[in-house]
Amino acid sequence: MTSLSNPTVTTSAGNGRKPAVDTKFVYLFNEVELAEKAVGGSWSDARGLLGGKGANLADMTRVGVPVPPGFTITTAACNAYLANNEQFPAGMWEQVLTAVNQIEALTGQKFGDAQNPLLVSCRSGAKFSMPGMMDTILNIGLNDNVAKGMIARGNDPRFVYDLYRRLVQMFGSVVLNVPDEVFEAVITARRKKAGVATDPELKAEDWLAITNRFKEIVRTYTEAEFPSDPFEQLRLATEAVFKSWNGKRAVDYRNAAGIAHNLGTAVNIQTMVFGNLGNDSATGVAMSRNASTGEKEIEGDFLFNAQGEDVVAGIRTTQPMSQLKADMPALYAQFEEIANKLEKHYRNMQDLEFTIEHGKLWLLQTRDGKRTAQAEVRIAVDMVEEGLITPKEAVARVKPEQVDFFLHPQLDAEARKATRPIAKGLNVSPGAAVGVVAFDADTAERWAKREGKDVIMVRPETKPDDVHGMLAAKGILTSRGGRTSHAALVARQFGTPAVVGVSELEIDLDKREMTVDEELVVKEGDWLSLDGTNGLVYLGKLPTFVPDINNPYLSKLLSWADDIRTLGVWANADYPRDARRARDYGAQGIGLCRTEHMFFETDRLPIVQQMIMAKTVTEQNEAIAKLLPLQRGDFEGLFRVMDGLPVIIRLIDPPLHEFLPAYDVLIQELADLKLNLQHFHTMSEIDQVLSEIRVKQDYLARVETLREMNPMLGTRGVRLGILIPELTKMQVRAIFEAACKVAKDGIDVHPEVMIPLTVHVNELKVQQTALELEAKQVMTEQGIKINYKFGTMIEIPRAALTADEMAEYAEFFSFGTNDLTQTTFGVSRDDAEAGFLVQYIQQGILPENPFATIDPNGVGKLMEFAVTNGRKVRPDLEVGICGEHGGDPKSIALCHGLGLNYVSCSPFRVPIARLAAAHAALADEA
Amino acid sequence: MTSLSNPTVTTSAGNGRKPAVDTKFVYLFNEVELAEKAVGGSWSDARGLLGGKGANLADMTRVGVPVPPGFTITTAACNAYLANNEQFPAGMWEQVLTAVNQIEALTGQKFGDAQNPLLVSCRSGAKFSMPGMMDTILNIGLNDNVAKGMIARGNDPRFVYDLYRRLVQMFGSVVLNVPDEVFEAVITARRKKAGVATDPELKAEDWLAITNRFKEIVRTYTEAEFPSDPFEQLRLATEAVFKSWNGKRAVDYRNAAGIAHNLGTAVNIQTMVFGNLGNDSATGVAMSRNASTGEKEIEGDFLFNAQGEDVVAGIRTTQPMSQLKADMPALYAQFEEIANKLEKHYRNMQDLEFTIEHGKLWLLQTRDGKRTAQAEVRIAVDMVEEGLITPKEAVARVKPEQVDFFLHPQLDAEARKATRPIAKGLNVSPGAAVGVVAFDADTAERWAKREGKDVIMVRPETKPDDVHGMLAAKGILTSRGGRTSHAALVARQFGTPAVVGVSELEIDLDKREMTVDEELVVKEGDWLSLDGTNGLVYLGKLPTFVPDINNPYLSKLLSWADDIRTLGVWANADYPRDARRARDYGAQGIGLCRTEHMFFETDRLPIVQQMIMAKTVTEQNEAIAKLLPLQRGDFEGLFRVMDGLPVIIRLIDPPLHEFLPAYDVLIQELADLKLNLQHFHTMSEIDQVLSEIRVKQDYLARVETLREMNPMLGTRGVRLGILIPELTKMQVRAIFEAACKVAKDGIDVHPEVMIPLTVHVNELKVQQTALELEAKQVMTEQGIKINYKFGTMIEIPRAALTADEMAEYAEFFSFGTNDLTQTTFGVSRDDAEAGFLVQYIQQGILPENPFATIDPNGVGKLMEFAVTNGRKVRPDLEVGICGEHGGDPKSIALCHGLGLNYVSCSPFRVPIARLAAAHAALADEA
Repeated sequence: MTSLSNPTVTTSAGNGRKPAVDTKFVYLFNEVELAEKAVGGSWSDARGLLGGKGANLADMTRVGVPVPPGFTITTAACNAYLANNEQFPAGMWEQVLTAVNQIEALTGQKFGDAQNPLLVSCRSGAKFSMPGMMDTILNIGLNDNVAKGMIARGNDPRFVYDLYRRLVQMFGSVVLNVPDEVFEAVITARRKKAGVATDPELKAEDWLAITNRFKEIVRTYTEAEFPSDPFEQLRLATEAVFKSWNGKRAVDYRNAAGIAHNLGTAVNIQTMVFGNLGNDSATGVAMSRNASTGEKEIEGDFLFNAQGEDVVAGIRTTQPMSQLKADMPALYAQFEEIANKLEKHYRNMQDLEFTIEHGKLWLLQTRDGKRTAQAEVRIAVDMVEEGLITPKEAVARVKPEQVDFFLHPQLDAEARKATRPIAKGLNVSPGAAVGVVAFDADTAERWAKREGKDVIMVRPETKPDDVHGMLAAKGILTSRGGRTSHAALVARQFGTPAVVGVSELEIDLDKREMTVDEELVVKEGDWLSLDGTNGLVYLGKLPTFVPDINNPYLSKLLSWADDIRTLGVWANADYPRDARRARDYGAQGIGLCRTEHMFFETDRLPIVQQMIMAKTVTEQNEAIAKLLPLQRGDFEGLFRVMDGLPVIIRLIDPPLHEFLPAYDVLIQELADLKLNLQHFHTMSEIDQVLSEIRVKQDYLARVETLREMNPMLGTRGVRLGILIPELTKMQVRAIFEAACKVAKDGIDVHPEVMIPLTVHVNELKVQQTALELEAKQVMTEQGIKINYKFGTMIEIPRAALTADEMAEYAEFFSFGTNDLTQTTFGVSRDDAEAGFLVQYIQQGILPENPFATIDPNGVGKLMEFAVTNGRKVRPDLEVGICGEHGGDPKSIALCHGLGLNYVSCSPFRVPIARLAAAHAALADEA
Repeated sequence: MTSLSNPTVTTSAGNGRKPAVDTKFVYLFNEVELAEKAVGGSWSDARGLLGGKGANLADMTRVGVPVPPGFTITTAACNAYLANNEQFPAGMWEQVLTAVNQIEALTGQKFGDAQNPLLVSCRSGAKFSMPGMMDTILNIGLNDNVAKGMIARGNDPRFVYDLYRRLVQMFGSVVLNVPDEVFEAVITARRKKAGVATDPELKAEDWLAITNRFKEIVRTYTEAEFPSDPFEQLRLATEAVFKSWNGKRAVDYRNAAGIAHNLGTAVNIQTMVFGNLGNDSATGVAMSRNASTGEKEIEGDFLFNAQGEDVVAGIRTTQPMSQLKADMPALYAQFEEIANKLEKHYRNMQDLEFTIEHGKLWLLQTRDGKRTAQAEVRIAVDMVEEGLITPKEAVARVKPEQVDFFLHPQLDAEARKATRPIAKGLNVSPGAAVGVVAFDADTAERWAKREGKDVIMVRPETKPDDVHGMLAAKGILTSRGGRTSHAALVARQFGTPAVVGVSELEIDLDKREMTVDEELVVKEGDWLSLDGTNGLVYLGKLPTFVPDINNPYLSKLLSWADDIRTLGVWANADYPRDARRARDYGAQGIGLCRTEHMFFETDRLPIVQQMIMAKTVTEQNEAIAKLLPLQRGDFEGLFRVMDGLPVIIRLIDPPLHEFLPAYDVLIQELADLKLNLQHFHTMSEIDQVLSEIRVKQDYLARVETLREMNPMLGTRGVRLGILIPELTKMQVRAIFEAACKVAKDGIDVHPEVMIPLTVHVNELKVQQTALELEAKQVMTEQGIKINYKFGTMIEIPRAALTADEMAEYAEFFSFGTNDLTQTTFGVSRDDAEAGFLVQYIQQGILPENPFATIDPNGVGKLMEFAVTNGRKVRPDLEVGICGEHGGDPKSIALCHGLGLNYVSCSPFRVPIARLAAAHAALADEA
């Protein structure tokens, strides 16, 4: 086959039929302007007429990229064909013949000519990429005569018959519906006969024999000869593409994807080029920038004397693009220039397919290249600086989830691909962790602190007692629990990677080992690697790397995002160290400080328990008084870190029984103690056990009275504040004493006190009024005035429904969308995410997990109602969200739409939320 | 003192000041028309000017009832006095003097005259009856001179000085602010001195001495003489009434009751009459009809020669009115005539106070009489038939709660008054029950069925296993549980009186006894009486009586109510016997048949458990198939009873674990079985125990997987239907097979299939679509078409919020307001009603228990939203309510206001609901 360069212009009119002049059904790749004019519109409208592939080839041609010449038969032709009883519309075929003539003129080749034949490919191309449409047919234009002529002109016979058998095979299976397995069986038989293992080892005579056998098969199946007329081949292939638009798979796909059935498909006919015509030919795939790092350098692989599929098949070792630069510097320079041109044109990094035929470069395809999160960010920022895109476009281009990558250590991608996980659970806290297994908190802490080991703490589930171990561990793994289990919440809070609810783990705390899937045994001290981002558990020590949150490209991007967004981004933080991180990550306030988390600390829990176990109010108040200085210290630290920014502190929320040992545990402990009695003999021993029993029995009795059928709907939040007013009063005193103290040190402090679980305005009336008095009292005592607010959570439907009444008292609202979702749906999250909710999402009954993304029709409606009616009463009402949804991009968009002042999320999601908020603002402009 | 009859007209002009003519501040009792004219309005407007008491006395005077003459000083005068620095408005006092003259003319007596003195009372009288206003002052006009004159004219000195000391005492304490205790101390000292125990034993000289001592006290305290001038007495008394309007207690009361502060009070000055002037004098209180039964007969008590307070004080034995008829037939006839006249005037049964002074009848007060529910109904119906009131007025007059009386046995009122309850709990099912205590269901059933005993079943709490005993018992008593506990629900369903959650009961099932308040011990077999209406428990066998629901007066009244109401009244019924009762009580359909209640029956529970314990789907479906004929039979019976009326059948709702033994129970049983192993020795014995252990362990494992943290928000309702589609399919098949069968027998059947706990339209899409197919399949098989509907419960906020989407599928909505209240408030009813909710209601944080009456601002808003948006999509959407609120009058009014089609309640509340619905319709007209 001759080179396609230096085409000779000819004016042959094909087989001479006169084209109709009314409708233009065929566009050469260089006629894109005509197509645009025809649809009376722009480039994007032309896509509808030419299909995605056709439009793209035309587009590349327009910007001067060397694309093998060809033409597109329009989707309008397809629609006319299908509407008109499978007849080509008048004039179409004539236009095709003219276009073939024009290609012949461009290439200097002639379709069906034995001396210098034009071979073409035929591909479908609808507006949207769509599985189920007809596959490619290559090498149209070959027949016995042409093949012989090509060999006579010096082409390798093996090359020619391989092309020929491919035409018959593709045409046979795709156009004539011969099962492809039959063709494959012929090749297999031939390999056997030739005594070789792979196709490349087959010789010219093998391919000739195979081609002939293929033609016999076609004859047998279709009771007709394989069409040797190139124009007949072209016509049948075009019709097959048109018909495939109404094939079952294509129709099913369109139904599922919601694509209109009246779009039709275009047909692309393109000159064949070959990279396997010797050492001056090559083929390859390359990116215009580094897809891993985003650096501006061509990155890709190619092979000399090879076909496209060889590069991806992995049989031959590919060469890096630097080799092409060394071997063919001019051609490489041309490629680099084309890549730059296409980048400029598409304003994005490109993924390019190319072929070099006898030293001539052809581009076969270009598309936006896939890349890592790191590369995405760098490329977006670089392109702004190169003047290719605007900062807004850069911000829009990076997905919020991609930012997560920078926040956590990651398992090395190669190592992860090479290793099989041993178990899968819920991905409750992202990032990678590698360490040795410790089966209890004390061991975890000891190994981590004293022996400097990296530890993965593994428990059936975790409790407040375990927090010291969890803090010391690199990762957390539990066999039970859901997305809001203690383990999950603590892990997310501290940014510790965690996988929970891994039901295939059987943990034997006595034997200090766990069994995975009843087979694999992992002992304490063995190495494990966790992928918290994907919920996977690996055996052994996988390599990891730590991305850099202070990556300058990311910082730049986020600063642009901050300029764009109107929604504030605050963080949930209970401790000064969390607040510090939140601030570093760009948080503009603390949206939720959960005071009760402090109650679980080892030095406080006994006091809290003393308060709960108190037999008299005096005893109770004594315990509360002991908590005051501790809480004051907590808040002081928080205020100092958040100098100048608001800090919302939520008063105690969880039911009291959470601070006591679990019912089942107490029962077991009591049984054990009673059994122990048998082993003791001296009176003093027995006395001691009896006194322990008495204490446990006291606890048991209290736990029994505090037990609730549905604790989620029980005595917690403001209900507790109303039952034990001294407790919330102490908290408010601690907040204001701390605020006054730091204010005297020059700190600009903005405390906001939040009352949880309110459902009736009278709850606010009673609690808020009493607490504001206490606040004023403290300020009078301290002789200083503090700017403060009082407000309420909106986390139960009734609070949202009576937002106008609530806003009479509350100066701010904060949506607790986790509880609001639970009550609006009547779903207990802990139960449901391990139960029916999974099936609901699998069956498509729920489009998404409403605990991951706010349900717009139910929960969102309540939120809208609350914002609107709350602001009617108090126009400057500050409204935010402090549920986990605050870190979810879709939910952030919803919050932006509702006109919230801010979202508050885990410190680790603050950068994500900044970007998501910018996206929401950009969506408004669109 | 002379008789007041035959008054002599005089024209004395008092002390001769000329009255102002511009404003009329004083109205004689016979000048009510002038007062009406002055306010330019009607009788009710005149109440504002004259106050309630003044208006009433004027009104009686107008209709010719003999009322002691007098006059009213208007509220306008009071307001002018208070506004004008405590000065009477110009002309007022002159008008008072004129009025005194006019009364003198009417009575023939003269104010301050020693010969024939006029004595008057002075009373406050605001528009609304109001505590904190000035008390009565009697006997104004007395002084030393007048007293002597009266005695000289033949009055008993003891009588005269008793009057005199009362004047000084009342005037001293009320007008001059002398502490009343001082006066009482004087009387006590005098009794001691006279050596008597009671005031009536004191003689004339005692009262004279007391009067003198009182005057000395006044002098000491006020540094002024007790005013002897009658006009001075009158002026000071009037001013004191005016001033009392701004007294602290009155202001506080008005603030609390929301009464305007600018109304002012009137002052009533009225001639004194005396029933203690000899045996031709008397005093008494009587009703115009029998207040217990409603029969049309005068009923009351009186005493000859007595004062009003003697009749109520109970020191002397009163005589029935029949005695007055015998002794003074003419006077009795006059009284009867007056009673009739006042009944006609006020169009209601009257409660009359009268005095006979020297054979002349005077009426001192009339008001609508208090009466029993039974009397209320009869009087209302009788009055319609007498032409006194319209049927609408009769309906409006009877409170819905009063109808409850007719539906349950009642404890005898006298016996109840005489006995102290031993404990108090939740009044979950009304009516009285008397029986012997049985501590388990089997004993209860055995004693009731075999021995014919009346039984009160007493348990810590009840479970489905106990239903046979509960059915056999007359009453149910539990120490635990709330208003929706199993015991409460079953009791209400069967109309069995019940008291639950009696925490002072300590039940010892081993000793077969219970301890009340750690003191009183009640043994099995002892008699108990329950008052389910009030939640009280009595020791022993109290007498009861059974009112008649078929009371013809009630039937008449309810038929009028049916004519008035627009809201349908349906009933909740699971069994044909319940449906029969519902229909008898006037239900127009079944709004809720809970299919799962049938699952608890002893012949079915094992099959249900087999279904739940199934290890394979096949096994599960086998069990489901066994339930089909049983369910079909259930529905058949229901359809036959409800011939011509709609029957809504709800598909299975409760979580599966409710059908299995409780977790705690299984743990205990397993422990016991293991302990038992020690006592067995042969292998076969041990084998048997081991196999029992295995079964229990299987159950325990299943219960563990089904256990939920918050079962209220768990896997139940349609969630279950989607997880086990075969179960709901079987239920629908049973419904339609039953419907087809009875239709063939000529029954007019209207099944409506209801899907519970829906929160997303896709749940309906999936379930309803599948179930409608099954329904059509059955009808095709049976060759008959049935009129049916498919619809959904609206019992979770999200269902209400997406009502428009729901109505695309559902042909009807039924509000489940119990769950809707739980989720809208985020309150678990079972926990809260025994916990914080009590304190919330006591502290006034919640105005009412939202589980008793629908919360209009939260739950009501959701309902309104659902009705409005549902009907937008489907204008003929049938909307009802099937929660317990359906039987609560206030909630019924709300449902009427929202335009619901019907309310559905327990059969026992159907008559109440019929009346309440009529009230709601009447309120629209007002």
